[in-house]
Amino acid sequence: MACATNAISLSLSSNPNSKLSSDFIPKLNRPVNVSLCASTSAELDPGRLFLSRPIGLSRRICANATPVMDQSVGERSSSVPTIVEVDLGNRSYPIYIGSGLLDQHELLQKHVHGKKVLVVTNTTIAPLYLDKVVDALTKGNPNVSVENVILPDGEKYKNMETLMKVFDKAIESRLDRRCTFVALGGGVIGDMCGFAAAAFLRGVNFIQIPTTVMAQVDSSVGGKTGINHPLGKNLIGAFYQPQCVLIDTDTLSTLPDRELASGLAEVIKYGLIRDAEFFEWQEKNMEKLMARDPDAFAYAIKRSCENKAEVVSLDEKESGLRATLNLGHTFGHVSNRNWVWIWRVATWRSCCSWHGYGC
Amino acid sequence: MACATNAISLSLSSNPNSKLSSDFIPKLNRPVNVSLCASTSAELDPGRLFLSRPIGLSRRICANATPVMDQSVGERSSSVPTIVEVDLGNRSYPIYIGSGLLDQHELLQKHVHGKKVLVVTNTTIAPLYLDKVVDALTKGNPNVSVENVILPDGEKYKNMETLMKVFDKAIESRLDRRCTFVALGGGVIGDMCGFAAAAFLRGVNFIQIPTTVMAQVDSSVGGKTGINHPLGKNLIGAFYQPQCVLIDTDTLSTLPDRELASGLAEVIKYGLIRDAEFFEWQEKNMEKLMARDPDAFAYAIKRSCENKAEVVSLDEKESGLRATLNLGHTFGHVSNRNWVWIWRVATWRSCCSWHGYGC
Repeated sequence: MACATNAISLSLSSNPNSKLSSDFIPKLNRPVNVSLCASTSAELDPGRLFLSRPIGLSRRICANATPVMDQSVGERSSSVPTIVEVDLGNRSYPIYIGSGLLDQHELLQKHVHGKKVLVVTNTTIAPLYLDKVVDALTKGNPNVSVENVILPDGEKYKNMETLMKVFDKAIESRLDRRCTFVALGGGVIGDMCGFAAAAFLRGVNFIQIPTTVMAQVDSSVGGKTGINHPLGKNLIGAFYQPQCVLIDTDTLSTLPDRELASGLAEVIKYGLIRDAEFFEWQEKNMEKLMARDPDAFAYAIKRSCENKAEVVSLDEKESGLRATLNLGHTFGHVSNRNWVWIWRVATWRSCCSWHGYGC
Repeated sequence: MACATNAISLSLSSNPNSKLSSDFIPKLNRPVNVSLCASTSAELDPGRLFLSRPIGLSRRICANATPVMDQSVGERSSSVPTIVEVDLGNRSYPIYIGSGLLDQHELLQKHVHGKKVLVVTNTTIAPLYLDKVVDALTKGNPNVSVENVILPDGEKYKNMETLMKVFDKAIESRLDRRCTFVALGGGVIGDMCGFAAAAFLRGVNFIQIPTTVMAQVDSSVGGKTGINHPLGKNLIGAFYQPQCVLIDTDTLSTLPDRELASGLAEVIKYGLIRDAEFFEWQEKNMEKLMARDPDAFAYAIKRSCENKAEVVSLDEKESGLRATLNLGHTFGHVSNRNWVWIWRVATWRSCCSWHGYGC
């Protein structure tokens, strides 16, 4: 099957350790909504992924957010967080985005319920940000006590055995229904902490503090939580919304290049499948994003969260529309995988949608 | 602290193997709402539990149910189920109560979603009712396939290890989001199957078919699901409502006396803490209940479910009112335990309510 007009090519590296190269930036004359286009793997050039023809929503997004920033970037004050609202009735919550937000203690503290907090993080993030988060929770707020549980880092630990460590700690610390769980880390931590919060005493409050781009623009927003089963990913979990999502873009300074690349691919997804104007903006600002420009990142994250928030508001439990976002994870690994892998994942995700397995 | 007027005495046996005796029947001149009354264990007669003074709701219940039966019992047709509605907005569901309901296949089938069903039961109940339930699900409905998982019987198996067997079976059977889980058994099975349904693929439909009085009048209604943690009961779970509860009173014919007694104590609770008229009815009909009269039981279960449904409708997630029902579990073991045990449980439950642990 030949690909039609408006084809985009993403050059891919098959070296899993390679850093994001300029080849990763989409080349496009004008922004369009596009879709994967290939009937058999034999038609795909192993070094390039072809995309064409619209499948996503074509309308301009208008999420329940603060007014859209000027697309030129740079007028933003780092001290004032951008706020995107996820509109879910009595489960609505804000996403705060900006630089230095972990130093604005009142932001976090106003979403803490009760006097006991459990921070769930991992061995990579704890040395970097745990003390900062504990400060943010307790400064000027002496009545709050903070416990923590530090899990091993990595997708392979996203299982029931690791989850039980969170319950163990919560119960040993005598936390009650009025406590708050805080997820500090990437997508694995957010998913596990969220599910633990959903299931501990049949549900306690929780807050997301995502520290990777992937988690900031996707997994921390929308309440999909869970763990893996030996036979499949994310097969056990809950739809459970946080009290707020706090995205301090300063945490990106410590993010490895590979993680950054994966997250950027997730950002590109929103332009590809449902937001042409954002895609155009990405074309103009990709170099700033690659250089980790905080204002550019704040805007990219905000716009991504607006897209995600809108989809979640329309289809919280993934009965249809939200499943289209699962495609994005395919692109989330574009920079570090070869086309065969991508094709397999895309096919697998189609199967997931067909069979009702949302990841 | 002296107990005031309207004291009720429940004679207790310390022999865990004793059958329900007539001593178990409350003696009361007129129905009242009452509460536990004792300041120290030293004031309690080890053979008798004193109750006095109203704490529960004093108003007559008027749940969202079919018209209240005539209290004389006996006008009921066993072929027409009594229906009690649990009013929870878009999570509302019916409780069907009656004799021979498992032979009315359409009752069950109209609440099955999708074409795959997983029946979760245990080694005691499976030989008695599994085939009957499979028939009820599949007769005249050839498109539905039914899998089952048979768990070991007993509270000690209400843990994560056993729960994983349900997930294993669901995943091996390639169940998708459109499947239905069916809980066939007592409270342990209902709680575990309900939590498995809440967490499998972040939530699938489920149906409760409780086979003990305790489960029929309490644990199957209201959506409290969960498992135990080595450090405490029901600490991991979810509020998750079923599609329907189907109570076939014929299943009580195989219920051991001890289980029947525990369940009757749960029934008495509703009279004690919030329904004086029902308490009066119990006084008049206790002998019929002891003799397992199906019409008397259908009425007692209906009235209990009405009480439970009303409380659940007002306070689904146990933020206050619903916690008063936890007291009932204390009485649920009256017939087989001594007063020291009851006092400990009552104290423990008070602590649970205080600390936010609902059981």
